[in-house]
Amino acid sequence: MQSTPTERVLAIDPALRKTGFAIVESAGKDLRALTYGTIVNNPKLLPSGCLVAIREQLNDVIRQYQPTVCAIEATIFVQSLKTAIVLGSARGAALIAAAEHGLAIYEYAPREIKQAAVGRGAAAKEQVAFMIRSMLRLRETPPADAADALAVAITHFQSSEAHRLTAREARRC
Amino acid sequence: MQSTPTERVLAIDPALRKTGFAIVESAGKDLRALTYGTIVNNPKLLPSGCLVAIREQLNDVIRQYQPTVCAIEATIFVQSLKTAIVLGSARGAALIAAAEHGLAIYEYAPREIKQAAVGRGAAAKEQVAFMIRSMLRLRETPPADAADALAVAITHFQSSEAHRLTAREARRC
Repeated sequence: MQSTPTERVLAIDPALRKTGFAIVESAGKDLRALTYGTIVNNPKLLPSGCLVAIREQLNDVIRQYQPTVCAIEATIFVQSLKTAIVLGSARGAALIAAAEHGLAIYEYAPREIKQAAVGRGAAAKEQVAFMIRSMLRLRETPPADAADALAVAITHFQSSEAHRLTAREARRC
Repeated sequence: MQSTPTERVLAIDPALRKTGFAIVESAGKDLRALTYGTIVNNPKLLPSGCLVAIREQLNDVIRQYQPTVCAIEATIFVQSLKTAIVLGSARGAALIAAAEHGLAIYEYAPREIKQAAVGRGAAAKEQVAFMIRSMLRLRETPPADAADALAVAITHFQSSEAHRLTAREARRC
């Protein structure tokens, strides 16, 4: 573990209807999940309303838990351009919440997140959730979207300083 | 023109580094541009900082001009999935600003915007800016991104009520 004892991460797996989030901190050699959950948006809500809800609910989490950095799953594999634009908008809402609070943002690819959580790049969602429960000694298996966010947090803490440099939000895009 | 006399539109052409915006209202049979411009983000600014700036500056425009609806250019043609995700995030920032103020959102495809401004679906940016200047009797040719936003506003006012129904932000995506 390369993390400093005081680092507290807000991890996000953004999507319009179900955004997973988690707050994880390093406590010595152990990691501790302070909270985790899913921002669920009703299918009847307009997309713009979903984006407002994602930003506002992440703002609430940030205000309550005061994380020091943000780690987010990079959107790489998508079915279509339309899906990419929709996912991009959800990602934008999450980034706004983090940036408004001055959090440094780190991005991790889906494959490296699964690698960190399960030990290999290809893994089913259920496997990720099961491993996350074990690694963080949770009382119950977290819901899939929250488990993905917890896996993002674990990836961040397992990253070397050198890797974190490349994971920092890039200026150019 | 199908618009009511009191309708005032916030029109947006969103992009991470240059977001065009315009406030246009119908005055009898004429359209009047109250303001227009470009939210320019420095290339050194991180993408998340750009998104915060887009939301905040559109919020300022909304508070100052009190539009009644929002019209936005739909992102359809993009070079790559990466571009789609970046454009999607800029679009998300714009949609958040509009939705936070309770504005109904209408989306128009690039082809129909050029059709409304120039009379045909394929037109160069310079042609759009020149025609917009003429249609709105502006003293000078607006910058390209602002001209695109002004064209979105014109498209909205030229749309029939039937067409506006399909242009309303769709619940499902």
